[in-house]
Parts: sequence; C-alpha cells; structure tokens
Amino acid sequence: MRLLFLGDVVGRSGRSAVTRLLPGLRQAWALDCVIINGENAAGGFGLTEAICDDLLGAGADVVTLGNHSFDQREALVFIERQPRLLRPVNFPPGTPGRGVTMVETTTGARVLVANVMGRLYMDALDDPFAAMERVVGECPLGLGADAIVVDVHAEATSEKQAMGHFLDGRVSIVVGTHTHVPTADARIMPGGTAYQSDAGMCGDYQSILGMQHEEAVRRFVEKTPGARLEPATGEGTITGLAVETDDRTGLAVKVSAVSIGPNLAENRPAFWE
Amino acid sequence: MRLLFLGDVVGRSGRSAVTRLLPGLRQAWALDCVIINGENAAGGFGLTEAICDDLLGAGADVVTLGNHSFDQREALVFIERQPRLLRPVNFPPGTPGRGVTMVETTTGARVLVANVMGRLYMDALDDPFAAMERVVGECPLGLGADAIVVDVHAEATSEKQAMGHFLDGRVSIVVGTHTHVPTADARIMPGGTAYQSDAGMCGDYQSILGMQHEEAVRRFVEKTPGARLEPATGEGTITGLAVETDDRTGLAVKVSAVSIGPNLAENRPAFWE
Amino acid sequence: MRLLFLGDVVGRSGRSAVTRLLPGLRQAWALDCVIINGENAAGGFGLTEAICDDLLGAGADVVTLGNHSFDQREALVFIERQPRLLRPVNFPPGTPGRGVTMVETTTGARVLVANVMGRLYMDALDDPFAAMERVVGECPLGLGADAIVVDVHAEATSEKQAMGHFLDGRVSIVVGTHTHVPTADARIMPGGTAYQSDAGMCGDYQSILGMQHEEAVRRFVEKTPGARLEPATGEGTITGLAVETDDRTGLAVKVSAVSIGPNLAENRPAFWE
Amino acid sequence: MRLLFLGDVVGRSGRSAVTRLLPGLRQAWALDCVIINGENAAGGFGLTEAICDDLLGAGADVVTLGNHSFDQREALVFIERQPRLLRPVNFPPGTPGRGVTMVETTTGARVLVANVMGRLYMDALDDPFAAMERVVGECPLGLGADAIVVDVHAEATSEKQAMGHFLDGRVSIVVGTHTHVPTADARIMPGGTAYQSDAGMCGDYQSILGMQHEEAVRRFVEKTPGARLEPATGEGTITGLAVETDDRTGLAVKVSAVSIGPNLAENRPAFWE
Ligand SMILES: [Fe+2]
Ligand SMILES: [Fe+2]
Ligand SMILES: [Fe+2]
Ligand SMILES: [Fe+2]
Ligand SMILES: [Fe+2]
Ligand SMILES: [Fe+2]
Ligand SMILES: [Fe+2]
Ligand SMILES: [Fe+2]
Repeated sequence: MRLLFLGDVVGRSGRSAVTRLLPGLRQAWALDCVIINGENAAGGFGLTEAICDDLLGAGADVVTLGNHSFDQREALVFIERQPRLLRPVNFPPGTPGRGVTMVETTTGARVLVANVMGRLYMDALDDPFAAMERVVGECPLGLGADAIVVDVHAEATSEKQAMGHFLDGRVSIVVGTHTHVPTADARIMPGGTAYQSDAGMCGDYQSILGMQHEEAVRRFVEKTPGARLEPATGEGTITGLAVETDDRTGLAVKVSAVSIGPNLAENRPAFWE
Repeated sequence: MRLLFLGDVVGRSGRSAVTRLLPGLRQAWALDCVIINGENAAGGFGLTEAICDDLLGAGADVVTLGNHSFDQREALVFIERQPRLLRPVNFPPGTPGRGVTMVETTTGARVLVANVMGRLYMDALDDPFAAMERVVGECPLGLGADAIVVDVHAEATSEKQAMGHFLDGRVSIVVGTHTHVPTADARIMPGGTAYQSDAGMCGDYQSILGMQHEEAVRRFVEKTPGARLEPATGEGTITGLAVETDDRTGLAVKVSAVSIGPNLAENRPAFWE
Repeated sequence: MRLLFLGDVVGRSGRSAVTRLLPGLRQAWALDCVIINGENAAGGFGLTEAICDDLLGAGADVVTLGNHSFDQREALVFIERQPRLLRPVNFPPGTPGRGVTMVETTTGARVLVANVMGRLYMDALDDPFAAMERVVGECPLGLGADAIVVDVHAEATSEKQAMGHFLDGRVSIVVGTHTHVPTADARIMPGGTAYQSDAGMCGDYQSILGMQHEEAVRRFVEKTPGARLEPATGEGTITGLAVETDDRTGLAVKVSAVSIGPNLAENRPAFWE
Repeated sequence: MRLLFLGDVVGRSGRSAVTRLLPGLRQAWALDCVIINGENAAGGFGLTEAICDDLLGAGADVVTLGNHSFDQREALVFIERQPRLLRPVNFPPGTPGRGVTMVETTTGARVLVANVMGRLYMDALDDPFAAMERVVGECPLGLGADAIVVDVHAEATSEKQAMGHFLDGRVSIVVGTHTHVPTADARIMPGGTAYQSDAGMCGDYQSILGMQHEEAVRRFVEKTPGARLEPATGEGTITGLAVETDDRTGLAVKVSAVSIGPNLAENRPAFWE
C-alpha cells in the first residue's frame, strides 16, 4: 500500500500548497491513503470546518491535530460529526472527537490512523505510551488493520524516538509532528516500522514555524507584548513522509522523505517516480 | 572557504565514526575548517581531555559543547588550557573556558566560531540573542573575520530559527545542535547565511539520542529508577552541514546536509565531489 | 476525629525533630491519625525501610511520598510489604506500591489516605484529578471512610488550590506538599474540607528546602557542577496541619497550621491545648 | 523604619481591600514606606495607569510588577512617566520602565526598592542574582540607602530562598511574590535580612489565585478552551509582610506576616499594635 503523510499545515501558504500539489501527487504516485496534520491551518491556530473540508477535498483521507486542536472553538463542535478528523487520543476522556479512526481505501484495505501527543515540554495529557498500547492491542496490525499510521505530536526527539522503538514492528508508520521542521532521519526500523522524527510543515519556510519572522524574533529579544503572530505569506512547501507497505504484513518496505516547494532541497520518493 | 560542521558526538560509536571518516573527508573535500560538537563524546555525558584531543587530532579545528559541557568535571580545568574548545558563550561571567574563538586556517583565513545556548525548555542562561549581538558587534564578518560559524545549542526549533533570522547576513553559518536528529532544512537564507536547525549527531542512530533504546524507552513508560543510560554500540553515522563561503563576503554560496553511515540516507555535498 | 499531617521530612534534622516531638504531641493532642510525608527523609532523597519504620514508630500511621519516592532503590522493594507507605496514586499502573490506604484508628474509625502528584512544572504522570475522582468514587466520605486525607504533592499553588476546590465537601483534608515551605492559608473551604496549599517541611529551615544553602545558592549563580547537596544539620522544625473532623460527616470543623521549632513563628492548635 | 509590603493585588476585590484598609493601617502603624505588587490589579492581568494611581493614592509608595507587567499595553507607555512603578530589573536592556527606584520618606530616609524575577519555571530573563549583585553593589545598604526592599517575583521556593541567602545582610527585606499564597516563614535571617517566601495576594481567597475557581478547575480537568478567567468577586483579604528596621544599619529587627480579611487567619504585627 502507498501512504503519504504531510506535516502541520500552516495558514494560507500551507493550504494553497496542499490543494495545488496533493491532487496531482495522489494520482501520480497512486496513493492509497493520505494523512495530513492540520493543527495550524487556520491562520496558524487550529482549523475550521471549511478548512478541514478543503484538506479532505484535496485528497487527504484523514486530518490529524495536536496541541492547537481547539484553537478555533468551532472545532469542539464539528469534530463530532467528522470521523476523518482526529485529535490526540490521550486527551482526557470526554474530550470532543476521537483519536483513532479506520479508513477504507478504494481497494478495500483498512488503514488505522492514530494521533497521540507527547508530554515532554508540553501541557500534560495522559500517558501516550499506555494509550498507544491500548490502540494496537485492540486492533493489531495484520489482524484488525492492513496498515497503521501513528502521528506522534511532540516536542522532544527523545520522546518521538521512544515511541518509534515502542511501536516498532507493531505499526506501519510512526511519524512526528509539531516542530514544523522536517528531520532527515526517515528510515525503516529493525522491526519494519517506517519512522521519521518530524514530518515538518506545509507552509512558507522563509519564516519561524510558518509565522512571520519579524515578530517571532522580536519576542525572543524583547519581553514585551507586540503584534499578533501572522502566517508568512510566501509560497508554501509541503514536507512529509512517503511509505510503501507490504500488503501481507502491513510493515514498511520503502520509505522516503518528501519535500516539494521553495527554500528546502526537493525530495521525492524515487521508487514511485 | 570550505567549512564542515558535525553534530553532537555520542560515545564510542560517534568517536569512532569521526576518527575513521573525518581525516579522509578533510582531504577529499579540501576543507578549510571543521567544527564538531563534542558534548556527549564521553559515554554520552561531556568530554574528557583525551577525547577532546582525539577529536582535534582527527581533523576538528574547534570542538563545541552545550548543556553537557561540564558533565565530566575535568572539563572545568582543561577547558582553560584548550583555546579550541568552546562552551556556550552565554554561561555566566566567570565560568571556566570561553564561548568564542578565532581559528586561522592553513591559508591564513580567520574563522570565528561561537557556541551559544538557547533557553526554551532548557536551564536558563543569559540572553543568547544579546550575547550573539555582542559577538558579531565586536568582530563583524568581513572585517574581523573571513567567516563566522555559530553553533546554537537549543531544544526548540522556534528559537533556532529565530537565531537564524537574527544573524542572517551577519554570519556565515547558523547551525543548531542538541536534538541529536539532523533536520532536512539546510539552506541559504535571504541575507546569505547558511542555516540548518539541527546538525544531528555522530553516533549510532539505532538508539534514542545515541543511547541504548531499551532503558530510554522504559523511562518513558515506567516512572521508576532503572539502569544507567549507556551509549548504543552499533556503527556510528556522522551528520552535519557542509558550507562553501564566498572568500570576499564570508557569506554562504553553497550548502548541503551531510550524512555518512548506516541507518540514514547518505548525503554528500555534490559540489565538492 | 483528630488528624495531624506533617510536611516533607528532610534528612536527619527532620527525622530527629519528628521522633523527638511527635510521641508527645500524639498523646497531648489525643491524635487519632498522623500522616507524614517522608520523601526526603534519607539524606534529602527518598527514604529507606529503616527510616520508614522510624517514622511509623514515632507515631505516624501513614507515610506519603512524591517525586522522590524511589530515590532510594530499596523503596521499590519494601514499599510492596509496607501497606502504610504510599507513593502517588497516579504513577503508571504497575508501579510498585500503592497510592491509597485505609487506616483503622484505635477507636475503630476508618481513615482513607491518598497521595497524588500534580503535573504543572513536574514530570508528567497520569491525570491527578481523574485519579482522585476514582478514589473518592470508590470510597465516598461517610460511607466507605470516616475521614479522607489527601496529600497533593505539587509545585504550583494553582494546581493545589484546584484540587482543593475539586474535592471540597468530598474529603476531610486536602493538603499540599513539595515546596518545603508552609503556607499561611490553612482554612475550611465552603464544602467543609480543610485545606492548606503546603504543609511545609520537617527539617532545618536555615537552609534551602532543608539542604545546605551554600551549594544550593551556588547552583543558581554558577552553572557548573559542584558538591553534592547535603541536608542542613541545624535543629529541625516540624510544620503541618491539625484538623478536627466531625465524626458524623467526616468534614472539618477546626483547622490550624502547626509549626514547632526554631526559625519559624510557633503555631499550635489552640483548640487542643 | 516601619515598612509594609503587600502581595499581588488581584482584580477589584484586591483593589477594594487595599484602598479600604491601607490608609488606616498607614496611619495606625505609622508606616514609613509601603510597597505593593500590582501585577494582577486590572482584572487579573497587569495594571492600568488609573489603577496604579489608585494604589499610590491609597498609600503605596512603590508598586511592583512581575510576569504580567505589560498585560495591559498602556503600561508600556505610562511606566515611563511613573518613577514609582517598577517592573523586574532583569528584563532585557531597553525594556520600558525601570526595576529599581529610590523613595524618600517623610522623615527624609531613603528606601531603595527593587523588583526582580526568577527563572525557574518562568519565561527566561537575565540572571536575577547577577542583577541584584549590581543593584546592591551600586547602592549598598547603610551607604546609599537607609533600607533596601527586594520583591523577588518567582515560582519556585528554592529560587526565592536562594535569593534570601544571597542577599542576607545586604538588604532589609527579601520578599517573594507570584504564587498568590502567603507563606508562613516570615523571619529574620542570620545576617539581618527579613525574609518571606511569598507575600500572598490581596484579593478574594475563595478562588484560585484570585480568579473564579470554576473555570480554573475546569482547565485542569478538561483540556479544551473555555470561558475567560475572571477575578473572583468576594471580599478581598490583604496579605504581606511588616518589618521594622534599625535606622542605623537598615537591617530588620522585627518581622511579622500580615493578613487582614476573610478566609485566612488574621495576622497583625503585635509590635505595632
Ligand atoms: Fe504545529
Ligand atoms: Fe503543535
Ligand atoms: Fe547533545
Ligand atoms: Fe545538549
Ligand atoms: Fe519534598
Ligand atoms: Fe517533592
Ligand atoms: Fe501575580
Ligand atoms: Fe506573577
């Protein structure tokens, strides 16, 4: 199966890059399933229902979130009626929405997607490792699902790598989000799980995390309130991870980082081109 | 000028990879100056004088440090007699050692190297932006130095990108360290400064931050004391940043991420091969 | 019922003050139940079985812990055979020991004691509010227990006050520990729960958190490794909370901070003297 | 000299308590100098010029601030024309306002007041210990000033105690603010400096940090956005520290915590009544 994961969409630059590029890629690469982190799609803070629909309409099967899940209040409502939108599974019980969903591809394959949030240097949620143990326990790879994709939204590389090792051989992909910078460590782990510490972002990289750099730099230098942080408006780049799995085992057989657009070195999965 | 920066060396695997590969690269790529972050070279925690000498002997001109600078107590002493070893410049006044040094290359060019530590999610030091403002104020690129290389040892991508924008056009390279994972964002910024959020590490990537993954995972899952963290012992990979600067301006004209060794996709500067 | 809670015992000074003063107080005040936080009793870091026995022998019915629970490795073992020693209830499932215990007083009353840890500015454990909801759900005050005492081991006053409001009317006492400084806010909340943000410590207050101040100050000023932190050795003071509950409801009817020893203003419960 | 320090004023309840009680206390206790922390006076977030004037008009000689200094943007402007309003001295150079001021009492005595912010669990500012070293170096007690009062706005008791030891014998008072809970450790340190870890707040204590408890508790239990935090509106209590200094040395000779109002046990300096 052919899976594509794209990192945090930031503002209009990110959305435009996704809607412009994804339909073509979906066809050209014959993708079976596409997952996109959308937590910064609405002006850098959360996402609206209209934007969620845009991302799904552009070719995403599932949209994941993170610490910005509910920055737009309407997400507390529409997430309940959108089964393809996930917030981290380790939010407290009773939180609107869900953290795991099953996608059926056009060929009838079942892809389980989970979104989980780390705790190091982040607001404390429930144990992400215990949460994922339950997820894969209830729906083991090969039995309950033909592929399992895990978006681990976390700050620290140590915690993301730990999740990779923890789930190695039990899921198809462990990919990090949240830092908005793609890491150059896409690989298949010994157990067969594709891993990348961070998928990066879909947005304008001539920025700080996709936001205009002037005010963001000023906040590090001065400690006074200033202007609102606004998304940078240059042409967006999309980054993420391309993975081909073995249809029989659900484990990864090919992996490549993806980067298309200005500012970063281009990267395309040679095995699909 | 041809500059190579390598990320945090972790344990024996990292040291072996550096001492095995660097001499050949220095010659093959005709490098003018090599900087290596060595804060984890001694069993993952700090470095000893013997290890510092090994790294310098293998072809490093300068060794930089970070939050682990003084994990080995002897570093408090020998750093005073080793002008090519840097600890972050924004340690409090009176801290042993220095945070900035000038290297003269074999061709007589002057390379200023600075090491500075971020504060987000880290133990608080003095303002890294104010510190770097002073450094480049006292020794401007093109006047005081033919190239300036800044190792910004920090956790958060936002703070490292902010330092990149803050110094863009005023230094040759801003490269991050500390996360032990190379980022895929090596680029030349609009002002001419080469930038990469993190150089990654020199060490065994089948690990967590270069340390054996079993105990590191266990610490996330259980909250009880366990075994010591020990470096992973598989073959090391070296990662970092290759930059060619304009001899006249000191600004970057070519940039490439570098990754040589198992586990990660190989990456060599095409412009030097 | 007459209940006494004493804050974190630190080192020999703290232990000596407890063993010297508690037997007399237990008798003079006709105490029904005494709970002591012992997480720093062994040289400032954790506690040993011998020290735990000393505290119980001096008149404690229950010893609670916190983030230092397992600093002494032997605690991982002996906590399993000591039902009167508690570690925070929101440690991950599978952690040795327990977070809740039931004490039967000499008059046959049942006192439920729970230890729970906050998450703000602390290593992330499971949700302390959800954990306490379960505890009081399974053993409601007045039905399952004649009194309920909760030691909330936390850094932030906001989180401790939130626990107080969350449990107000459902437990007899919510008392904080961990900051090693007694707060002057002992009171009965509107629902009938006795509350104090922090019980303070049993130890030498001419110190920093009970440890010798010279090295502790140096660590704030210099950022280099130094000597071990050792407990201060002056005469210890004991501080905590005295509460009288209504035997029928289990709610608090009288409350007073307690402070006996040098350095701090003396405070004794007038209603028992 | 007779000095009174009052903790963080929170909202209308806090302001009303101060304006109602302070004029009478100033007269009854024959106070020479009054300092109030006002960082939460405007609806819990910062202060306006009108509110600052109200506090000064009620009898404060100096108003100090903290991490909420500039929550009300107008403070960036009016702080420049109000020499009796202080923000932490270790804000970056160039920050509007000042961190130190000299007050001349009606009897002609000079009181130096400084405001400094800690760094543990707080946004990183410059080194508070180095900053205070400069302050007392430039204006030593007994030479440059007849009394020196230091408001150390910090989260961790360790950092506040460290500042107490660091300045012991060199200033008249080191008093903490920020946690909004008064501590019961008012005392004179061996060197003669009056010390209290936290002055508490002036506000409605039937609250969480002076804000309405319902929403504040909800934020700990649920992790979704909710209502604005609003100040609690019950009758306010004022808390702080009363200190009498030796006119010759400037060191403390008498010290007492102060608490007047509902919810907390009343505390008045017996030596002035
Ligand atoms: Fe994001
Ligand atoms: Fe995020
Ligand atoms: Fe490192
Ligand atoms: Fe580091
Ligand atoms: Fe403690
Ligand atoms: Fe503790
Ligand atoms: Fe405050
Ligand atoms: Fe504050």
